[in-house]
Amino acid sequence: MHSSDPFLFQLFFIFVWAKLCGEVFERLGMPAVLGEILAGIIIGPYGARLVVPSDSIYAIAGIGAIFLLFTIGLETPPKDLIQVGKTSLYVALAGITVPFVFGFSYMLLAEHTPSEATFVAAAMVATSVGITARVLDDLKLLQTRPARIILGAAVFDDILGMILLGVVVGLVTTEGATKWVQLVVTAVEAVGFALVMLFYAPRVVRRMEPGVERMSTRDAPLVIALAICLGLSFAAAKIGMAAIIGAFFAGLAFAEYSPRWRLGSKALAINEFLAPFFFFSMGARLNINVFDRRFVISAIVISILAFISKVVGCGLPVINLGWRTAAKVGFGMVPRGEVGLIVALAGLQAGVISERAYGLVIFMTGATTLVAPFLIKLAFRQEEPVPLITVGDTDSEDSNRSAHMR
Amino acid sequence: MHSSDPFLFQLFFIFVWAKLCGEVFERLGMPAVLGEILAGIIIGPYGARLVVPSDSIYAIAGIGAIFLLFTIGLETPPKDLIQVGKTSLYVALAGITVPFVFGFSYMLLAEHTPSEATFVAAAMVATSVGITARVLDDLKLLQTRPARIILGAAVFDDILGMILLGVVVGLVTTEGATKWVQLVVTAVEAVGFALVMLFYAPRVVRRMEPGVERMSTRDAPLVIALAICLGLSFAAAKIGMAAIIGAFFAGLAFAEYSPRWRLGSKALAINEFLAPFFFFSMGARLNINVFDRRFVISAIVISILAFISKVVGCGLPVINLGWRTAAKVGFGMVPRGEVGLIVALAGLQAGVISERAYGLVIFMTGATTLVAPFLIKLAFRQEEPVPLITVGDTDSEDSNRSAHMR
Repeated sequence: MHSSDPFLFQLFFIFVWAKLCGEVFERLGMPAVLGEILAGIIIGPYGARLVVPSDSIYAIAGIGAIFLLFTIGLETPPKDLIQVGKTSLYVALAGITVPFVFGFSYMLLAEHTPSEATFVAAAMVATSVGITARVLDDLKLLQTRPARIILGAAVFDDILGMILLGVVVGLVTTEGATKWVQLVVTAVEAVGFALVMLFYAPRVVRRMEPGVERMSTRDAPLVIALAICLGLSFAAAKIGMAAIIGAFFAGLAFAEYSPRWRLGSKALAINEFLAPFFFFSMGARLNINVFDRRFVISAIVISILAFISKVVGCGLPVINLGWRTAAKVGFGMVPRGEVGLIVALAGLQAGVISERAYGLVIFMTGATTLVAPFLIKLAFRQEEPVPLITVGDTDSEDSNRSAHMR
Repeated sequence: MHSSDPFLFQLFFIFVWAKLCGEVFERLGMPAVLGEILAGIIIGPYGARLVVPSDSIYAIAGIGAIFLLFTIGLETPPKDLIQVGKTSLYVALAGITVPFVFGFSYMLLAEHTPSEATFVAAAMVATSVGITARVLDDLKLLQTRPARIILGAAVFDDILGMILLGVVVGLVTTEGATKWVQLVVTAVEAVGFALVMLFYAPRVVRRMEPGVERMSTRDAPLVIALAICLGLSFAAAKIGMAAIIGAFFAGLAFAEYSPRWRLGSKALAINEFLAPFFFFSMGARLNINVFDRRFVISAIVISILAFISKVVGCGLPVINLGWRTAAKVGFGMVPRGEVGLIVALAGLQAGVISERAYGLVIFMTGATTLVAPFLIKLAFRQEEPVPLITVGDTDSEDSNRSAHMR
C-alpha cells in the first residue's frame, strides 16, 4: 500500500476540505454543494495548489457524477409523470426553451463559437430543484399547489435536459456536411432512449423482479441496479451521448422498485462518499485566472439572463393562475445545479468549450443557486403550511429530492 | 465524458464479470469472493486478457480494500472483547503463533528469502471467520459455545493480525543495521495504535457524539467516520504500516456507534460497489505462468500446513473442553480471507515477495476457504440448533460477520 501514499493523501485531503467547506456553507444558510465546489477552487491547482488531483481522483469524480445522476433518476418514478399533468409539462418545456434561446443568442452576440454557445445555453436550461424542495420542505409548503407544479416540472426538466445534453454532445463532436444528419440521428437516439427507459424499462424491471429476488448474491437488487447503471453509462458514452445520461435513465428504470429494494438509501451512501470528489474537482477545474473585468461582466449578464429567462419561461404557462403563483413557480425553478455543471464538464472534456465558458457556467450556477432561496421564501411567505405526508413514493429514507444538493 | 470510455468499459465489465462468477460460486455452495477472484484470473491480464485493469481501476480496488477492512472493523465492537474472555484470546494467540512458525520455517526450508517467508507466514495467520459464521448461521448454531469461542477468537485474530501486518511491512521496508531497531519501533507503534484505537478512540467518539449529531452536513456521522477512515489509512501508510490497518482501526473506533448511526449498512453499500474491484484485481495480479509442477507442490504443502497449523493451534487451547469442541473450534478458524490476501498484496506492492509467493497465498486462501465449510458441517453435525437472537450488537442490517465474504 506504500505506493499509494499520494493517492491516499489526496483522497483524505479532498474529502475533508470539501465536507468542511460544505458544513460552513450549510451553517451560513447556503447549499453545501457550493462550498464543496469552492473548496476545489481555493485549494485546487488554480488556487492555493495544496492539492493537484491525480487522474485517479478525476476518475473517482467521474464515477461520482454517474452515481449522482443515478440517484436523481432513482427519485424520479416514471409513474409520477402521469400524475403531475400538463401544467408541469408546459412549465418544463417553456422553462427549457426560453433560457436556451436567451443563452444561445447572448453567447453568439458575445462572439463565442456556436459550439460554446450551445453548451453554455444547455447548461442554463437544467433546473436543480433540490434547493427549492429543501426550502419548501423547511417551510412545510411541499404539499401546496405551486410546490407540486415545481416538483412535477422538475421531473420533466431532468428528462428533457438529458435529451438536450445528448443532442448537444452528439452535435459538437461531429463536423462537416454530415453534422445535421448526425443531429437528427442523435436526437432520435436520445428521444428513443428516453422513451424506452421511461415506458419499457420499468416493465422489464418488474418482470426481472422474481429472478432478482431469488439470486444467491447478497443484496442482488443493488448489484443488478449498479451493473445496469454502469452498463448504460458505458453504452450512452459509446453512442456519443454523455455517460451520465445512461446513469440517469438507469435510475429511472429502477425508480419504481427503489423503496422496496431500498436502492435509494444505498445509492445515497455511495454518493455520500463519491460526490464530494465530483464537486471538488468541478471547482479544481476552474481557472480563476480567466476572471478579468470582461469575464465578470459576461458572468453577471449570463447569470441575470439565466434568472430572468427561467422566471419568465416557467412563470408564463401558469400566469392564468395569477401572477403570485407564476412568481412562485418561476422562482422555484431558478436554481441550476449538478446537471448544468455536468453539461459544462462534458463540454470541457470534449474540448469544445474554453476555460472562460466553463467559468461562466460555474459562476451562473453559483449565482442562481444562492439567490433562489431568498426569493422563494419571499414569494411563498403568504402561503399556509400544509402538513407533509410524503413527496412522491420514493424511499422514505431519501425523504425528498433535496438530498443531493444539501 | 468521452475520454473516459475505456475506463467506463472496464468499470462495467469487471463489475459484471466479478458478480457473475460470484453468483455461480454461490449457487455451487462456494464463497462468492473466490468467484470474484477467479474472474480476475480468467479474464485478467494473465488469463484471457479481455481486460487489463488501468491504474484508476487499481486505485478503486485499493479504496475497496480500505472499505472492506473499515466494515470489518465496524463489526468488531471493542466492548465484545471483554465479554469473549480468555479462552478466545488463547485460541487466537495460539492460532496465530503456530501457523506463523510453520509457514515461516517451511518457506525458509524451500529456499525463499526471509522477507518472503515473513509475508507468506503472515498471510497464513489471518482467519476470515465470515465463511464459518455463515455456515453456522445457516445451521442455526451461532449461539453454541464453540461458535461463540470462534467468533470471539476471530475478533482478537483480526486485531493481532493487523498488528503483525504492521510489524511485517515495517520490517521488510527497512534494511541494514537499523533493521532490528526499526522492528521494535514499528512493533511499539502498531501495538500502541491498536491500544489507542481499542480503548481511547471509542471514548473520543462518544464525546464527539453530541457535536456530530448537531452538524448541518447531511448524514454527518457517516461523513465523519469516512473522513477518519481515510485519515487513519493515510496516517498508517505514512508511518510505514499498511493503509488498511488504519481503516480497520477506524472502523473499530466507530463500532459501538455503528447501530445507532446505521454506519454498518451504509459502509456495506459502499463495499458492495467497491469490493468486487478489489477481489477481481487480486485475481488479475496472479500470474498463472508461475504454475509449474514445483509451484503446485509448494502450494499444496503450504495449504496443508495452513490447515493443520490452524486446527492444532486453535484446537489445543480448548482441548480441555473435549476433542470434539477442539475440532469444531479448529475447523472453524481454518478459512483465510481478505486479510491474508491484503497481506500478500502489501508484499507484492512493496516489491518484497515474488509472483510465485503471491500465487502461493492466493492458492492457500482458496484451498482453506473451500475445504472449511464441509469440515465445519461435519464437526458440528451433532450440535443442537439454538434459536438465533443476535450476534453481538452490530447493526441489525449487517446481521453478522459473514457479510463480507458472501
